[in-house]
Amino acid sequence: MQKLMELSSANGPLCVGLDTDPSYIPESVLSKFSSPAQAVLAYNLALIKRVAEDKSACCFKVQIAYYEAMGLEGMKVYAETLRAVRESGLICISDIKRGDIAATASAYARAHFTGDFETDIITVNPYMGFDTLQPFTEYCRQGKGIFVLLRTSNPGMTDIEQQTLSEGGFVLDRVGSELNRIAEEYKSVYPEQTCSPVGAVVGCTEEENARVLRETYPNIFFLIPGYGAQGGAARIAATLFGKECGGTVNSSRGILCAWKKDEECQKKLSGGALTLEDIVEASARAAVASKKDLLGA
Amino acid sequence: MQKLMELSSANGPLCVGLDTDPSYIPESVLSKFSSPAQAVLAYNLALIKRVAEDKSACCFKVQIAYYEAMGLEGMKVYAETLRAVRESGLICISDIKRGDIAATASAYARAHFTGDFETDIITVNPYMGFDTLQPFTEYCRQGKGIFVLLRTSNPGMTDIEQQTLSEGGFVLDRVGSELNRIAEEYKSVYPEQTCSPVGAVVGCTEEENARVLRETYPNIFFLIPGYGAQGGAARIAATLFGKECGGTVNSSRGILCAWKKDEECQKKLSGGALTLEDIVEASARAAVASKKDLLGA
Repeated sequence: MQKLMELSSANGPLCVGLDTDPSYIPESVLSKFSSPAQAVLAYNLALIKRVAEDKSACCFKVQIAYYEAMGLEGMKVYAETLRAVRESGLICISDIKRGDIAATASAYARAHFTGDFETDIITVNPYMGFDTLQPFTEYCRQGKGIFVLLRTSNPGMTDIEQQTLSEGGFVLDRVGSELNRIAEEYKSVYPEQTCSPVGAVVGCTEEENARVLRETYPNIFFLIPGYGAQGGAARIAATLFGKECGGTVNSSRGILCAWKKDEECQKKLSGGALTLEDIVEASARAAVASKKDLLGA
Repeated sequence: MQKLMELSSANGPLCVGLDTDPSYIPESVLSKFSSPAQAVLAYNLALIKRVAEDKSACCFKVQIAYYEAMGLEGMKVYAETLRAVRESGLICISDIKRGDIAATASAYARAHFTGDFETDIITVNPYMGFDTLQPFTEYCRQGKGIFVLLRTSNPGMTDIEQQTLSEGGFVLDRVGSELNRIAEEYKSVYPEQTCSPVGAVVGCTEEENARVLRETYPNIFFLIPGYGAQGGAARIAATLFGKECGGTVNSSRGILCAWKKDEECQKKLSGGALTLEDIVEASARAAVASKKDLLGA
């Protein structure tokens, strides 16, 4: 988490989301590959290389659902994507949102912090209780990190996360208190670090809310979805990553689908000349533009 | 879900949990296979066959975490295990506890209701809100089912699930109300069926609690963890599956590790003669005994 914080200072706060659904790649490009999964892999590898060269982002977030949806071949592409991100020098966040009883959570921790699917940081769902977080936090002693769902960016976040408890505060505040407790615990493990290896997922949808969350959790690094295609404005994101520990702001479709809004790509598309390189270039330019947007906000 | 309900009446309520961690298989047996994952596959296939022959269970629950922990080879074994369960005539529950914003949940739904990882029923985490359930319930129109986490069997279930809301009731009651609403919605889709395609995960740890939950959700089929190795007594499980819609009671380690408490297996183990067939037989016997225990309670 500390390395992510440093990279976010050096490269800016952008996190490029590799939610690479084959439907985001134009049909004429897809058809040049042996399978949609191979097109996704080629796209991912090329974009990872470009973003690392441009230093336009501090990390990649790989959403495992899109790879599971491509079956066994998809899982192989997932593993190769993670390896490429980790070799690029940027941080790899696996957006897996796992959560289960302790014995099973231990298996998930092994699955994603070691072996074929090894990553740097994973996202975790705290719903089943704080005992389910421990198998993941154990790995934080060995340099890994987790982002716990605190306030997500979907409309349904009011159904449970933002319900008021009889003891006062929202459900998500209970999760937040636990994150503060864990941050305290890890101060002794990493005395030289400014932020906890246990971060939080905090969606950027309301500015007032963003301010309160940032002030309540000054030592927690945030993973901020909802910017770009999901509608969160750069200003709200800036409120969230603005203080001490900071955060990283994810954009997935805004970057993956940049070719759809790119004039040159559209011209080539109608001429039947659009290539994978073209859509990767459009994505790389969108990443640079998003970085500027976020830093200028 | 209807077929599961019928099978649970015909074969009894036992669900055999295939949380097959290689560590549950004795070293001397593991070493006869090309890899731990291949030993797991051979064990699963043999046990699925035996349980289907014995009619000692109505379904299998495959916990994906243990397969993810074995990497790419594990995912292949996972896919082959699901296929074997579905060909056995019993119901296949994939314990994946996924949950994410709608676009991503759609990808998870495709991943687990179609393709290499196709299953009959999945478990789902409702924490991010009820909009995140919809991509999964859509597939219920095509015969698939889901079990939503309602009250889990781990100690930490008091941290969020059983927190009291200022509007009254626990967090889990809000989830339950939504399940009742969905059940109502699906009455028109499956007018001839007695229970909703959307079931609930309800751990069996306290008898009074079990009684209240069963009475509050008469039309919801329960997936009941916590029996056997996790300490839930058959009597509590019986309270949960006792009424109208019923439920299925999962036992994983109690069956997978039955060889450890089996005298004959222990004798063979010390003589170096223990085989995969022996441990499968011990598991099959434990399944028959669990069925009796549950039906006699």
